[in-house]
Amino acid sequence: MVDIIHRVGIKAPVSKVYAALSTVEGVAGWWTKETSGSSKIGGTIGVRFLSADGKEIGSMNMEVVALDPNKKVQWRFTSGPEEWVGTNVIFNLSQDGDYTIVLFAHKNWREANEFTSHCSMKWATFMLSLKELVETGKGKPSPNDIKIDNWN
Amino acid sequence: MVDIIHRVGIKAPVSKVYAALSTVEGVAGWWTKETSGSSKIGGTIGVRFLSADGKEIGSMNMEVVALDPNKKVQWRFTSGPEEWVGTNVIFNLSQDGDYTIVLFAHKNWREANEFTSHCSMKWATFMLSLKELVETGKGKPSPNDIKIDNWN
Repeated sequence: MVDIIHRVGIKAPVSKVYAALSTVEGVAGWWTKETSGSSKIGGTIGVRFLSADGKEIGSMNMEVVALDPNKKVQWRFTSGPEEWVGTNVIFNLSQDGDYTIVLFAHKNWREANEFTSHCSMKWATFMLSLKELVETGKGKPSPNDIKIDNWN
Repeated sequence: MVDIIHRVGIKAPVSKVYAALSTVEGVAGWWTKETSGSSKIGGTIGVRFLSADGKEIGSMNMEVVALDPNKKVQWRFTSGPEEWVGTNVIFNLSQDGDYTIVLFAHKNWREANEFTSHCSMKWATFMLSLKELVETGKGKPSPNDIKIDNWN
């Protein structure tokens, strides 16, 4: 199994970072504006990605499987790209001086292929967007996300 | 063994991207300004990373082990952080329409720990810097690199 992992440090209290990860409004501020559903444990959050001209280019549903306040958020993807279904995204949070450290992991990809590489790069840009959102009040959620290649 | 992998697409001819990866001047334009040495096959390139106030915060040496014009560049780290020594970085290039696709891999980490996560995120920002350098003429090499956490 293959994992995508990233580390980012955000100059803000851990409670602010946790709020950005554990609520629909939060996720809409850094991942995609088109975020809806229930962010409670066992709830399903839906995310949709639109092109600049408003066409849907992708969507996923994820179940909220863990919410440990100021420590951990975990999602399990129940629909979306075939490679994503059944995989888990985990955010582990800790405080280190002025920084909240986010250890990101998208775990249990079946293989490391070109799409995995694309998603690793794309997750990194969304972690930068999360950092910007919490530090400045404004992230870069889709469709204003950083474009990295000819796929998105 | 653990690999860091990323995919980036650059709107430029493959020869321009290859030049940015296979020459000392190229690498100095996107990774770190403090790049020196020989970029020929079997040569050693040295890279140093400075803080904003000019103190060295890290350095590595790498041997150029593969140069396949417009297709592949491979380095093997011979000194630097303990976790890096013996690992390989590989850039595989291909053309897809207007884009040059870079498949980046930093291969054979002994484990996936917090430093691996930091380096995965940091490599992603340097791939954005490479894209900017080739597309606009100006990258973000260290010490002007994007800061991602409390380590760098």
